[in-house]
Amino acid sequence: MTALAYLQKAFLLSKKANSKDIRPNPFVGAIIVDEMGEIIGEGYHKKLGEPHAEVFAIQQALENHKDLSTCTLYVTLEPCSHFGKTPPCSDLIILHKLKKVVIGALDPNPKVSGAKILAEAGIEVEVVHMPELQKLNQVFNINQKFKRPRYILKTATTINGSIADRNGNSKWISNEKSRQYVHATLRNQVDAILTSAKTVLQDNAKLNIRMEGAQEKEQNVIILDKNLSILNNKKLELLYKRSNTKIYLVTHLDYQGPLEEFIEVIQVPLIDDQLSLDELNKQLLQKNICEVLIEGGGKLNASFISKNLVDEMNIFIAPKLLTDPSSINAFSSGIFQEIGEKQHFQLLELIQFDSDVLLRYDVLH
Amino acid sequence: MTALAYLQKAFLLSKKANSKDIRPNPFVGAIIVDEMGEIIGEGYHKKLGEPHAEVFAIQQALENHKDLSTCTLYVTLEPCSHFGKTPPCSDLIILHKLKKVVIGALDPNPKVSGAKILAEAGIEVEVVHMPELQKLNQVFNINQKFKRPRYILKTATTINGSIADRNGNSKWISNEKSRQYVHATLRNQVDAILTSAKTVLQDNAKLNIRMEGAQEKEQNVIILDKNLSILNNKKLELLYKRSNTKIYLVTHLDYQGPLEEFIEVIQVPLIDDQLSLDELNKQLLQKNICEVLIEGGGKLNASFISKNLVDEMNIFIAPKLLTDPSSINAFSSGIFQEIGEKQHFQLLELIQFDSDVLLRYDVLH
Repeated sequence: MTALAYLQKAFLLSKKANSKDIRPNPFVGAIIVDEMGEIIGEGYHKKLGEPHAEVFAIQQALENHKDLSTCTLYVTLEPCSHFGKTPPCSDLIILHKLKKVVIGALDPNPKVSGAKILAEAGIEVEVVHMPELQKLNQVFNINQKFKRPRYILKTATTINGSIADRNGNSKWISNEKSRQYVHATLRNQVDAILTSAKTVLQDNAKLNIRMEGAQEKEQNVIILDKNLSILNNKKLELLYKRSNTKIYLVTHLDYQGPLEEFIEVIQVPLIDDQLSLDELNKQLLQKNICEVLIEGGGKLNASFISKNLVDEMNIFIAPKLLTDPSSINAFSSGIFQEIGEKQHFQLLELIQFDSDVLLRYDVLH
Repeated sequence: MTALAYLQKAFLLSKKANSKDIRPNPFVGAIIVDEMGEIIGEGYHKKLGEPHAEVFAIQQALENHKDLSTCTLYVTLEPCSHFGKTPPCSDLIILHKLKKVVIGALDPNPKVSGAKILAEAGIEVEVVHMPELQKLNQVFNINQKFKRPRYILKTATTINGSIADRNGNSKWISNEKSRQYVHATLRNQVDAILTSAKTVLQDNAKLNIRMEGAQEKEQNVIILDKNLSILNNKKLELLYKRSNTKIYLVTHLDYQGPLEEFIEVIQVPLIDDQLSLDELNKQLLQKNICEVLIEGGGKLNASFISKNLVDEMNIFIAPKLLTDPSSINAFSSGIFQEIGEKQHFQLLELIQFDSDVLLRYDVLH
């Protein structure tokens, strides 16, 4: 077996975990191979706070082999080198004197320098680039690299980019199958939905997860709500009694009044009269909200795009036209743009739902 | 062989013709089968002014069979019943006393009542619906049914529906592969490109057919040009010396001045200060312009859509955003529309050109 084949095996192992069990940690799989090419240990990261993949693999290998100095460790991610919830894996690898470590992806966290530490300890280190690892750990990578949640933007437009008519009506642009996809795939995958108070008041959407043949599921909601206007509207659909999710109201106000148990205020400073998204990002990561779905209006969408905060776009295009120039566009910033300006959207996937189409774009940073 | 299988054979025969050789006529194929099920005659319509498919098939059948009274004619389109450029085929069928006629599609022209005439003459008539015939003769069908050219609308937009920035710049929204498709497939298929004087003056496009590895090809251009402003701009790219195509300037003015040989004025009345498209349609059909590609701006597009003059839409979506609300939208009418209004677009096809996507819609009338 080649190095890539062993890594592929470790990759498959890593995917046994459930993303919500390990957040904010990445998926990691590890296997240990002896000098005969036989796999003598394997492991993956199962749960936040529990041992890393390398620990399980080394433990298992030690059960049969006292000496690992002729063995190679194949691990999908660069071993950690710092004390987090568990001691550093690089120390353990050095302790057991493994001969070689083959790594599938370097850790985007600059604090992690496991590869360097291992090499300095005389262990042979090889890094093999596996693109599928980038995708698997895309949330972790964005969290580490940019110190913010990964943002997926979703919008449903007419053929010519409108999300609502001039009166703000948007029900329903996309069809039932498209909406099922939003619930079952997008809303279900993320840690929270982010929107604006304006959109909540306009649409009165429940913003939970409704899947065919399943019970309604709660979802966290983050609302940009400068003036805490949501608190004055007790009858909104999304104010249903929650048991395991929250509504986060983002405001610059220092609110000390009473709140329902499931409502929490996130206070951030105003910068140029706008809520500071940098501060919001920091607080969201602290709450272990690592991936967020943006379902807002044209201004919110344009604001996140212009600040380079969007990592993936999901654009549903319905077979409709709104030729009224006062219709609401999906992205509206008020900032002049020339057509030639360089942009960084890459089409990932096209999905058809009857006459609706979903265009999925990767935003390259 | 079943009736449908014989018709399928006639359908394949019909497609041997070249659409531009037969316009405004439809594709038609015919075969004659004797009482043993053997094909004894076949034919298709080859060229405008030359015999219809039925004539060829009957001629061939008569070479071996004096008597066709036990034979069945399978023909993809209802036989004609009126004198056009050739005598009516229904008369010929009655003359030779065929036993039965199986028809793939009725003629959308209300003047044609061949099926009725044959039945009245005691010939057994069966109509089998073949959907592929609808598609093959879609230009003819629209021409006959609505007495106008078939219109294909093409536009290239950003993800959010813009075709140009606020200064009118649109070069280039779509990529090279998308543009190749426009030239090789759309411009190459139609009889003319229709646009507005405003778009011509703005973009100074050549509006011809440029295909990779082939010589540039001319194409007819129809320009909505109320005030004949094109005549005051001698240096436009599309005013290249033409040998076999024309520029049609559509105006309400009675222009009697000198014109280049390849420029022709189409005079139509103004209705509510707008050029009469009904009159234009009539004159285009008289010129044997049966299929037209609309490549205009947002107002022209919306105007054709609102008058229900578009039969197919080709929307290229490029991986770009123009968040400036002053950008030019692909469809802009100034008429208020509610989101709930019923519309009739059906997705026909999705084609990907790298990160560009082409959405093809059928417009149901």
